[in-house]
Amino acid sequence: MNSIEIITKKKNKLELTKEEIAFMVNEYVSGNIPDYQMSAFLMAIVCNGMTIEETIHLTDIMIQSGETIDLSEINGKIVDKHSTGGIGDKTTLVLAPLVASCGVRVAKMSGRGLGVTGGTIDKLESIAGFQVEATKEKFIEQVNTIGVAIMSQTGNIAPADKKIYALRDVSGTTESIPLIASSIMSKKIASGADAIVLDVKVGSGALMKTIEDARSLAHTMITIGAHYGKPVKCVLTNMNEPLGYAVGNGIEVIESIETLKGNGPTDLEELVLTLGSLMVSIALDCTKEKAIHMLKENLQNGKGYEKLKELVTYQKGDMNQIEQDPYISIKSPKSGFITKIDANQIGEVVKRLGAGRMQKEDSIDYGVGICLSVKVGDFVLENEELVRVHFDGQDISMQEILDCFTFSQDAPEKEPLILEVIE
Amino acid sequence: MNSIEIITKKKNKLELTKEEIAFMVNEYVSGNIPDYQMSAFLMAIVCNGMTIEETIHLTDIMIQSGETIDLSEINGKIVDKHSTGGIGDKTTLVLAPLVASCGVRVAKMSGRGLGVTGGTIDKLESIAGFQVEATKEKFIEQVNTIGVAIMSQTGNIAPADKKIYALRDVSGTTESIPLIASSIMSKKIASGADAIVLDVKVGSGALMKTIEDARSLAHTMITIGAHYGKPVKCVLTNMNEPLGYAVGNGIEVIESIETLKGNGPTDLEELVLTLGSLMVSIALDCTKEKAIHMLKENLQNGKGYEKLKELVTYQKGDMNQIEQDPYISIKSPKSGFITKIDANQIGEVVKRLGAGRMQKEDSIDYGVGICLSVKVGDFVLENEELVRVHFDGQDISMQEILDCFTFSQDAPEKEPLILEVIE
Repeated sequence: MNSIEIITKKKNKLELTKEEIAFMVNEYVSGNIPDYQMSAFLMAIVCNGMTIEETIHLTDIMIQSGETIDLSEINGKIVDKHSTGGIGDKTTLVLAPLVASCGVRVAKMSGRGLGVTGGTIDKLESIAGFQVEATKEKFIEQVNTIGVAIMSQTGNIAPADKKIYALRDVSGTTESIPLIASSIMSKKIASGADAIVLDVKVGSGALMKTIEDARSLAHTMITIGAHYGKPVKCVLTNMNEPLGYAVGNGIEVIESIETLKGNGPTDLEELVLTLGSLMVSIALDCTKEKAIHMLKENLQNGKGYEKLKELVTYQKGDMNQIEQDPYISIKSPKSGFITKIDANQIGEVVKRLGAGRMQKEDSIDYGVGICLSVKVGDFVLENEELVRVHFDGQDISMQEILDCFTFSQDAPEKEPLILEVIE
Repeated sequence: MNSIEIITKKKNKLELTKEEIAFMVNEYVSGNIPDYQMSAFLMAIVCNGMTIEETIHLTDIMIQSGETIDLSEINGKIVDKHSTGGIGDKTTLVLAPLVASCGVRVAKMSGRGLGVTGGTIDKLESIAGFQVEATKEKFIEQVNTIGVAIMSQTGNIAPADKKIYALRDVSGTTESIPLIASSIMSKKIASGADAIVLDVKVGSGALMKTIEDARSLAHTMITIGAHYGKPVKCVLTNMNEPLGYAVGNGIEVIESIETLKGNGPTDLEELVLTLGSLMVSIALDCTKEKAIHMLKENLQNGKGYEKLKELVTYQKGDMNQIEQDPYISIKSPKSGFITKIDANQIGEVVKRLGAGRMQKEDSIDYGVGICLSVKVGDFVLENEELVRVHFDGQDISMQEILDCFTFSQDAPEKEPLILEVIE
């Protein structure tokens, strides 16, 4: 077996055996297959796809590449949540403490940035001192003590996925249903959750550009879950405009805090309640209506916010020190309704500001970002504030930012945030 | 402009601008784009193709990446020859001195191994002391003095192609019409030839598996040539069985010497005469019949062989020291006609013996190889010699070698070697 033969086989649209996939993945992890072969292999998969059998094999090989966590020492059902990633998606930062405040154990392992901005872990690191690494024992201990932990995926959970994920991020090979499905599911299965709730983003700012692709990804992940006997529920959500107002790292943490204090953007709150109701209803075995009621209550009475403070303090972060660069305000060049905010383009600008990674070795600038002052459907006057750009001396193009906005004299039809729930 | 956006654009099957292609190529050459991004980009091209405009842009960018050689100091028309590479293809080693012996100036720049075995330059290096590097001045001086030179493509001729070519070789991205066409044509145009004769191989042992692909490649290269005002003639030749008997490096040099002495395999000789007649007729402005007559004469009277000796001596090689490992003889397990010799499989075995490269940094073993004792159409008796395997302690699978041969009690129909000439 050799790597070039296997790459060529996938290039020629042939189905790979489990042994061939295992050879590529395991030899890559061992360092015997170089990055440039793996990225060519990944691009062949992106272009030519994988069957569901190949995708399950890949998932399984990535799970087997590391340890699988046994969370049975935690009382109660563990329901994990994952988002395929969108612009301004800070949902986990709000959802994890809020759900935990309802009495559900939340043992969350998250990744670093894939695509345009940082991941949940990158965002949390914009809080001074926040620790994202821990042993399995410490992780379980934390969940049993305060009910919630958000840690970086350890080197021992699906290390193959970790290495491949980092390479995909910087080689233009992120947009692939089998690669996304196996990456997400290998981590979720290995992390020991009993059930999984997935937020599949659809739209210009998401990996899935169409509802058809999103459905296909959802069904792929549900099928993988079934293979391991784990129920998977998918929520397909609109990502044509950024979620909430803030897009960056530190500024998203600040927006999350505001949301837990009950002052969050409507769309973010709606998403948190939808995902949260699935998680709570599975974990506590109650109706979704009852779950939503509990979640709303804990947004209003501040219990969700208290849980976040507890989490940050436990992981040694300082809530009073969140990185945020100074901003300039960009005003609207005209009056009118905002009919579109190009999430993808906003993401690209924020990435170039330094919030995401261009190459594997890049570090992230936590303080930069774009904070919208408007959402789609809002009416703005000429010279009213459109966005705040938080930056640190980078070269920014005003026009490029203005080009993200489409204006009209007519109010646009409001698109729904929640498109489908596939259970 | 950034690399991931451009990779993603090609992944999404969109046409790239000249500026985008230039960005990828030039930044890769400068070391600002890593191998793993370039190989993903190349695989996206392999899977999704390029328009003829993109292919001409790519060719032009690779030409502009280095110097273009002015061969006007050499008297007479310079007709270059190139082969897309096949198993056992040692044509240049025979053709260059033979054509030169007819009074045609042959200024040949060749590449290293792409695909399964070494390139012309690798093969020549199996002659002890043979020098393949020279300055442009020395190169021209040699052609003017002895009429022929075969040198390694210098660092200054299309360096972008050189770097990309090496990466394609080891990332499973060799099989692509736009990549092959632009690679070949950038070197040929930059090397200063007035006209170009191309040997496009077709079959199981070639990059082009079908006659349709081979025609498409030929037309692409003819179109690129026309863009630069250079006539290009293509010969499509059969590569379902290895060319000649020897497949390796040193052993191919030895077979080439035998061919120049008039004792060569029929197929190799036929190919040399066909390609040679095109080169000589263009260069000396005579009929192809006259050209063939001259070539045949110089095979018989030894002038072609004398020219090879002159060439090797001039480039400091020692004809008496050609690397060749000891061989074992593999006998036929049964009697019958040989109906097929799988060139591709023979190539894979020889590559694994060490005659080709698996990764960019690999060195080549000049002494290893497989020397057939039979050709398709031959009748063998049980226990008659089938092949000789030249090797140096490597682990070889007898069965794998025997599997390259198909036997039958009926004589196979003989396939023609020369399939089409596209002028």
